[in-house]
Formats: sequence, structure tokens, C-alpha cells
Amino acid sequence: MNDMNTTQHTSQQYNHELEEARSKLMTMGGLVESQVTNAIKALLDRDSALGEKVAYSDHEINAMEIMLDEHCAEIIARRQPAASDLRLLITIIKVITDLERIGDEAEKVGRYAVEMAETPTYGDLHNALRHLGEHVKVMLSDTLDVLGRLDVAQAMQVVRNDQQVDEEFDSITRQLYTRMLEDPRNIKDSLNVTWCARSLERVGDHCKNICEYVIYLVKGKDVRHTNIESIRETLLGE
Amino acid sequence: MNDMNTTQHTSQQYNHELEEARSKLMTMGGLVESQVTNAIKALLDRDSALGEKVAYSDHEINAMEIMLDEHCAEIIARRQPAASDLRLLITIIKVITDLERIGDEAEKVGRYAVEMAETPTYGDLHNALRHLGEHVKVMLSDTLDVLGRLDVAQAMQVVRNDQQVDEEFDSITRQLYTRMLEDPRNIKDSLNVTWCARSLERVGDHCKNICEYVIYLVKGKDVRHTNIESIRETLLGE
Repeated sequence: MNDMNTTQHTSQQYNHELEEARSKLMTMGGLVESQVTNAIKALLDRDSALGEKVAYSDHEINAMEIMLDEHCAEIIARRQPAASDLRLLITIIKVITDLERIGDEAEKVGRYAVEMAETPTYGDLHNALRHLGEHVKVMLSDTLDVLGRLDVAQAMQVVRNDQQVDEEFDSITRQLYTRMLEDPRNIKDSLNVTWCARSLERVGDHCKNICEYVIYLVKGKDVRHTNIESIRETLLGE
Repeated sequence: MNDMNTTQHTSQQYNHELEEARSKLMTMGGLVESQVTNAIKALLDRDSALGEKVAYSDHEINAMEIMLDEHCAEIIARRQPAASDLRLLITIIKVITDLERIGDEAEKVGRYAVEMAETPTYGDLHNALRHLGEHVKVMLSDTLDVLGRLDVAQAMQVVRNDQQVDEEFDSITRQLYTRMLEDPRNIKDSLNVTWCARSLERVGDHCKNICEYVIYLVKGKDVRHTNIESIRETLLGE
């Protein structure tokens, strides 16, 4: 009777630890999402104080990456999980690196928001930046959804959407280039906006990476580093 | 007797698998190093063919990341390694992501090398780019050394050197900015060179990340995302 209780207790503890890992992952995701949202807002509103707050808050995300890495490693060491749980834990370990890097990009945008708060209006660039920002926020929100529900169809949608983000980024950099040609006095600001756009584009890349890991986790098929057509073929072929 | 042979055999197999993981890691590192070296060469020599070759070869590195991830996951699942081996395997899983991203940056530089092969000479920028390239190559070579020998002192040296790379990057972007102001016809090329310099600076960041993982692995102390002074304090404090 005692052994059964112990086994049950251990099993409950294990389930609790797994659930805690997933819960911490979603918390980290929420922190990152908040940082990206605030960074974009700070940039578009030229809100220096908000930009500073974003830059200052990045350390929380870094701390969460370290803690989650340890938590997952401990579960693996002490519980010796079966194959599917192990793959989930390893996926979490991989994915939190991308989340932390998204946090880094948000911090950079926050710093640029502080630097550019005193500059003249963005003019026609404001719309383009806003669109890029909106797309990236949706991608990130969808990515956190994918992580929470392990939904392959939605993951594929995110991977597909990254192309749109890349195209908007190319469009912005072309507009900025034209702006620089028109007037050398525009160069400094245009460069700064280019860096911000690049950071947002990289957030999109990280979202795509995370979704590829999830597709790999759920489907067991290697879709990382392939294009969306190959992914669709691979998944339809089964 | 049979059990002892089986145990010995299993133990030998396990050691072989661990050794294979480390060996594949070094092979992947070598591939990445070759890509970065060639990318920088293609850029400085304006060698379009070499740039194309670099861009084309990135898929090999992506394939190695996927294979190594699987290899490590399988060892963890089947061998249920003890704590120190487990931490090594998890470190490898984390580190190969940074190696793959270094490969991505090399691919980008390769593509820019193709695009810029027809442009006029870099002029005074050539020296600055060459210096940055040299520094990054040394950082990467040292990082692979650190991975091979798990040498904490050398790892700390690499982390310290990243600051130098960041300073050279800032210096180049200032020079490029001046160049853009002098003549709008310089803008397109200067922008492209800026992106290349940014890619090289990111390679330095990834090297620093890898070395921080190694310090964490060997010392068991959290030094990730801290500055070099804190790392030194943390390690001296023991």
C-alpha cells in the first residue's frame, strides 16, 4: 500500500513539475510579449520613459531563461521521463533561447525609442512602422498560442506569415533609403529606424523558429530550415 | 559473467555515443568556421563566386543542427545519463542553436558579397572591415577551442573580447554614416556594408553566448547575461 502511495505521489509530483515547466514557459512568453508591445509603443509614440522601462526590464526575461533551463534539466535528471515528455522538455529548452532573443530585440527597440524621442516626426514612415509592428505583435501572440496549444496548423500559419513580415521590412528599408537620398539630414534618423525595423523583422524570425520546433515536436518530422511548401508537402505526405 | 560483459558493452557503447556527440559538435563548429572565413574573404575580395558558395552551403549546417539535436535527445532517452553527462548534452543542445545562427550570419554576408561584387572599391572602409573580420574569426576559433577543451579561462577571454568587436562595429558604423553624409551616391553601398558589419558583430555575440554556456556548464554558476566583471567576481568568489 505504501509503495502504491509513493508511486502515485511521485507520479503526481512529476506531473506537477511538468505542468510547472509549461506554466513558466507561458509566463516567460507573456513577459516577452509585453516587452515587444511596449517597445513598439515607445517607438511609435516617441515615449522615452516607456523605452527606458523596456530596456531596464530585459533582465527579468534573462533570469527566466536561466531558471527554466535549470528546471527542465532537473526534471530530466531526476524523473528520467519517457520519450514524448523528454522531447517536450528539450523543445522547451530550445524554445526559451528564441524567446530570450526576442526579449533582446525588444530591449534594442526600447533603447532606440529613447534615442529618437527628441527627433522630428517620422512622417510617412510612421504608417509603415506601425504596420510592421502590428504584424510582428500578431505573429508573437499567435506563437505563444501555438506553444500553449501545440497547434500545428496555427504553427504553419505563423511560418507562412513570416514572409509577409520580411516583405514589409524590405519595403520599409527601401522607403528609408529613398528618404536618405532626398536629404542627408535624414540619414541618422533613417538609419535608426532601419535598425528598429531590423529588430522587428528578427522577432518575426524567432517566432518562425519557435513554431518550427513545435511542428517538429508534434509531427516528429524535420521541418526546420525548410520553406513552407516543403513543410506542407511533408505533413500532407503522411 | 554474461551480465558483466553486457554492462561493459553498454557502458562502452554509451561512452562511444557521448564521444560521437562531442565529435559531431566539433565537426559542425568546423563547418561554421569555414563558412565565416569564406564569407569574410568573399566580402573583402569582392568574390562573387565564393559568396554564392557560402550562401549555398548553409543548408549543411542546418542539417547538422537537426541531426545533433536528435542524437543528443536519443542518448538522453536511452541512456538516462547521470547529472554531469546530462548537463553536457543539454549544453550541446543549446550551443548548436548559436552555431547554426552563426552559419545564418555567414550566409547573409555571402549574399551581400555577391551583391556588392560589382561595386566600386571600399576605399578606407576596407581596413576597418578587415579588422572587424579578423577579430570575429579569432573569437570564433577561440570559441571552438573552448568547446573542445571546456576551458573556462579562455571562455572568459572570449566574453571579454566581444566588447572589442562591439567597439569596432560602432566605429565602422560611424565611418559609414560620415561616408553617407559626404555623398548620397555612397548610401546604398554604405548601407550594405553596415548590414555586413552588423552580421559580423552578431557572430561575436553568438560566440559570447556559447562561451557563457560553457562557463555555466563547468562552474555550475549562472554567468549568462552578466557582464565580465560580475563573471570574474562570481568565479573568484569560490
